[in-house]
This record gives sequence, C-alpha cells and structure tokens, in this order.
Amino acid sequence: MAQKKAKILERREEVLKGLKDFGASVYNQLDQGVFPSVNMPSRSTENITYDERLRQYVLGEKSVGRSTRNIRHIKPFTQLAWVALFSNELTDQRKTSTLRDVYYSAQAYEMTFSDQQESNNIITDLETLTGFAREDFHIFPEERSAIFGDLDVAYTVPGYEGKSVNLTSHPDGVLIGPAITSSEFLKTSADKIIAIEKGALFTRFIEESVHSKHKSLLISCGGQAPRQTRSFIRRLHDELNLPVYIFTDGDPWGMHIAQVIISGSANAAHLRELNTPDAVWSGVWASDIIEYNLPTDPLDEVDIKRLYELQKDPRYQNDPIWQREIKTFLKIRRKTELEAFSRYGLTFIVDKYLPTKLEAEPDVAAGSGKKKK
Amino acid sequence: MAQKKAKILERREEVLKGLKDFGASVYNQLDQGVFPSVNMPSRSTENITYDERLRQYVLGEKSVGRSTRNIRHIKPFTQLAWVALFSNELTDQRKTSTLRDVYYSAQAYEMTFSDQQESNNIITDLETLTGFAREDFHIFPEERSAIFGDLDVAYTVPGYEGKSVNLTSHPDGVLIGPAITSSEFLKTSADKIIAIEKGALFTRFIEESVHSKHKSLLISCGGQAPRQTRSFIRRLHDELNLPVYIFTDGDPWGMHIAQVIISGSANAAHLRELNTPDAVWSGVWASDIIEYNLPTDPLDEVDIKRLYELQKDPRYQNDPIWQREIKTFLKIRRKTELEAFSRYGLTFIVDKYLPTKLEAEPDVAAGSGKKKK
Repeated sequence: MAQKKAKILERREEVLKGLKDFGASVYNQLDQGVFPSVNMPSRSTENITYDERLRQYVLGEKSVGRSTRNIRHIKPFTQLAWVALFSNELTDQRKTSTLRDVYYSAQAYEMTFSDQQESNNIITDLETLTGFAREDFHIFPEERSAIFGDLDVAYTVPGYEGKSVNLTSHPDGVLIGPAITSSEFLKTSADKIIAIEKGALFTRFIEESVHSKHKSLLISCGGQAPRQTRSFIRRLHDELNLPVYIFTDGDPWGMHIAQVIISGSANAAHLRELNTPDAVWSGVWASDIIEYNLPTDPLDEVDIKRLYELQKDPRYQNDPIWQREIKTFLKIRRKTELEAFSRYGLTFIVDKYLPTKLEAEPDVAAGSGKKKK
Repeated sequence: MAQKKAKILERREEVLKGLKDFGASVYNQLDQGVFPSVNMPSRSTENITYDERLRQYVLGEKSVGRSTRNIRHIKPFTQLAWVALFSNELTDQRKTSTLRDVYYSAQAYEMTFSDQQESNNIITDLETLTGFAREDFHIFPEERSAIFGDLDVAYTVPGYEGKSVNLTSHPDGVLIGPAITSSEFLKTSADKIIAIEKGALFTRFIEESVHSKHKSLLISCGGQAPRQTRSFIRRLHDELNLPVYIFTDGDPWGMHIAQVIISGSANAAHLRELNTPDAVWSGVWASDIIEYNLPTDPLDEVDIKRLYELQKDPRYQNDPIWQREIKTFLKIRRKTELEAFSRYGLTFIVDKYLPTKLEAEPDVAAGSGKKKK
C-alpha cells in the first residue's frame, strides 16, 4: 500500500520536475545570453509510425524547433511557457481543469489564444515536450465513464487520505474522474476486467451480478472511452495484473472503440501508457451475428467506407481475427448492437454469451498481435 | 426511515396494480363476450395545454380508443398488452431495461415492432393509460448524470437492503441510475440542491467543496437531464424539502435545460412529478454576461430562432425574468459558457459568482410564475 502510494506521489514529482526542467532551460538560455528555444519530436503525419514491439503508434526521428529568435515563433513559445506555468499551478495546487477552462483561464493572465483549437495544440506541445499526458497536469476531459466491482481504493485527494473505500458501495457505479484515476488500488477479489461500450449494458451486468459471478471489475466506457479512462484501464491491468475483455456493439465503430483501448490512437503517438496492448476485443463480432442469428441493421455507406479504412490500418494488420471480422462484416453487410441479445431474453447476454466469450481460448479473442499465454 | 421505505414499496405496489387492472379489464371484457378495448387521453398537439396551476403541460379532455373490434387496432392493442406483460415481468422481478432492450426483447415473445419508434410509442401509450412513467416499469435511459453530497441513502436493490451509504464516499461522484432513484433518503446536512449542466463544473464544485461550504447536494445533469434525473431532483426537493438552484451555460439551450427541469416538456404532458416547479434558474443569465463582462461567442442563426420560439412558449410567459433574459440575449446577440468565469481564475465561479446567485432574493431568480416565500 505504502509502495503504491509512493509510486503515485513519485509520478507527481516527475511531472512537476518535467515542468521545472523546461522552465530552467529557458532561464539558463537567458542567463547565457541566447534566445530561448525548445526542440520536440514532430507530430506531422509522416513522422508517425506504428511500432510493432510497443504495439502502438510512435513518433519518428523528425523534430521541430521553436526559437524566440524567430519572430513567428515568439507567440507559440510564450503560449507554451504559459501553459507550462498554468499546468504547474494546477498540479502543485491539486486543482483540476479542462481543455475549455485552460482556454478561458488564459485571459486571467492576459495571455491570448485566438480559439480553443490553438490552446489545445499548445497543450499537446507541452505533452510532446515533457512526455506526460495532460491528465498528469490535471487537465481532464468531461467525466462520463464509470466503474463497479470489488476493488478497495484509497483516494489521494484532500480529505480522503487513508480511507479505504470499496467500489461496490453504490450499485449504479462510480464515475471515473480525477479522484479515482489518482487513487491507490489496495485490494481486489476480481480476476479480470470487463469494459463495456454502453452504460445500459453496464447497468445490466451489475444487476445480473457479473462482478461476483465472473469475479470482474466492470467498466462503462460511455462510448469511445476518454483518454483518462483508457489509461485507467492500463493502470488496473498493470498494477492488478488482470486481463481485460472489451465488449462493444457489433459494427466498425464498436470494433474501433475496442482497438483504441488496445492500441491507442495516432493523435497520442507522442505519449505512452494510454493503451493496453494485452486487452482483447471479445465481441460483438461480425461472426457472432451469424453464430447467434442476431437481429441486425444493414451497414450503410459510411460503415462500409470505415471498414475499408480499418482494413488498411496498421493496428488491424497483425491479428488474423481483426482481419477475419472485417471481412465478415463486408460479406454479410450487417451490423448489430449489444442489446440485440435481448431477443433471447434479457439475461441471455450474461448467462450464455458472456461466459462463452470469457472461456474462449486466447487465440480466438481479437487482441493486437501478441497474446498472453 | 420505515415510513419512507414503505412509500417506495407502496408506489411499486401501485404500479403493479395499475398493470394488473389493465389485464383484468381485458379479461373481464372477454368474459362478458365483448371485444376488449381501452380508452386513454389523446396526446395529439391540440390536446396538450399548459396548466398554470400545476405549472406544467397537461392533456385535455380528448381521448382515443383502441378496440379489438377494429381490425386496424388489433396490432397496437396486442402490442400494448405485450408491453404491459413485459413491464410487469420487469417490475415484478426487479430487472431494469432500456427502450432499445424492449424493442429487441419483443422478438423473444414473437411480438413484432416494425422499428424502435413503434415500440417507444406503445410504451408511451402504457404510460398514458396507467399514469406511471416508464421508469416505474423499470425501463430506464442510459445513465449519464451524477450526484455528490452529504446524503445517507439506503438502497432497496437486492443485496444492499438495510445498509446506509453516504453520497460523499467517492469524490468523483456516483451515477444516477435505477438503484439510487429507488433508494430511501435517510439523512442530510444539505439545505439546498445545486444542479449543474456540465460534468466539468460538477467536478470543479466538488473540488472546491461547494457541497460543504454551501451545504448542498450537487447534481451533474450531463447536458439535458434525463427524465429519471428530473424526477429524482423532484423527489429530493419534495422529500428533503430543499430548494433547487440550476446553473447552465448562458445560451438558449442552457436556459431551456433549466426550464425543462422546472416545467417539464410537452412530450411528458401525460405524466406528473417529472418536473420541479419551485426550482430556479440561477444562471448563467444573459445579464450576467454584461454584469461580469464574460468572454462570449456570437449567437448564430439557430440560437436566435430558438430564442424567438422560447419567447412564445407558455413556460416562459409568466415570469418577468425569463422574458427579460430572452430579450437581453436578443439585444446583446452573444452567448457564453459556465467555464467563461475562468477568465477571473478557476475558483471565481465558486468564490464569487455562486454565493452572489445563491444569496439573490427569490424574486430575482428565474423560476416559473409562483415563488416560494
């Protein structure tokens, strides 16, 4: 417990040190009488490659510089310095914020951004420069995912230190926000994590006691899981050493929600540990539509276009399951939803489908390339 | 406590009785050798009027009949009987479901709906016929709103009976789902309820201890509050006897999010107790934009069209504040967001704006017509 807490505090120290280092380098350059400048990896498309070993996108060798010697660089450089200053205040004072807040907060410092896109970009610059995610700087997305299951956590936010709370205390589930993502994980009886695309199924799973019947921590992604939820799943996987199973709607969008949890996104190529390469997409597969004779809707043009894109996507290359499922979707031209199992009764999905999928041999579950033994 | 629990169980009994009564009337008619039929209030637009006394929309005198004597009525009548049967199973077995689930579940009973719109309509028929909301029949929306604050509740769902849990136990907040909306409210130190449009501000409010500094229960609406959250706010207001203050973005859409919590919607004219007529819209007002010199965006065409619609809406008629704010929006042609207060620092909204608004005399807060003394 003390060890885990130390690790959380350690990361905080590292984040603050990263920011301080940037500030120190600016001062040092000024002291030496040179125009302050920074260098960071380029995030342009041609510098993003898929790393087979890390099983995620990474940035290549190309870098970009920002020098205050260049009149066109002075504004973004100053903005970057301000975002670092503001992030330092947030992290130091343990206050959370959002991308939108940062944009408006700039005005309190007479710092100008022409629109929120500009401030978002500068925040991504700071991520690239330091290697930390904006969540590390206390800049969070809107909360919309949730967790339920037998896990004791100790919150590290003021007023909660030292107390152990169980995540089954409220049967509707607990929001995944800044507090839980910075909590210590103390104790669990779960032997797996089940992430579900939709809140409605999350509720069904709780109601049917999936957490106890299948010893699992249940996570509602709330659609495409926000970044903080994706890195939270990674932390749960790494620290508790639990396998992760993902259940989504049976369409290209659901499939990709699983893929982003597994392999991350190109937009986050400058960061690590937002994704869980060992997680598996358990369903709903295109082949489940056939096997379970599920009610379906026809794929529309956008769905089909998306499938052809995914077919070429490097994240889908190295696993025969992904490729097979894309082909099956294209062949049957139908899609379905998790709720479609209700055609066999409300509890079929929990009583029959889920156990079958959880018991499936690892090599029939779609993960990314390498599989755990 | 026992009394409150009794009340929850009593409602459950009433719901089951309402369904049974419908079934009994069908059997009675069959026994008497007549074609079974039902009568219910018409939900057509011309039968919806705004009731000044109830301060919500209601249905008028017009009614519609469905008789199995009429070949065109046999299908919707049978569908209605099936939805009643299914609702009875859900309520009796305490299983929750969604509109989508009901649509798919029909297939398990070889009951056909041509699309989900058709099953949704039949569910609304059952609401109209019985006077109960679909949530009473355990048909719930996707959870996306949340609560935080000093309130002890006792869940009535299986496995939780008798335990008292406090709603501050998880600092990110607890989801508002089927369990909490059916819980008993045991004890609170709060003297008000603050409902907030956005999750980001909900998080800020928790972080800045608004719940203890201003003795309040905090609710994140998650945008337009789902029906179950609106009736949950009403229950909190009625049972705990607490005033409700609503904070939204400063635009016609935010204003209307508050209005629907206060006065309900025309779509729910056949139901009661989904709205809280005594709740007040505390901000962000158009006049706050001027008073606080907030950063703004221009109103676009859709915003302006919406304001002219709201100006004529009966729910906006009887309160000078609503009318004044609509006029101010139209005059300044600008809108803003809750986050805009961050221009004065992250905590300004909590330190300055919120107390000013909460201390405002009741007659300067926009409610609907009548005000509490």
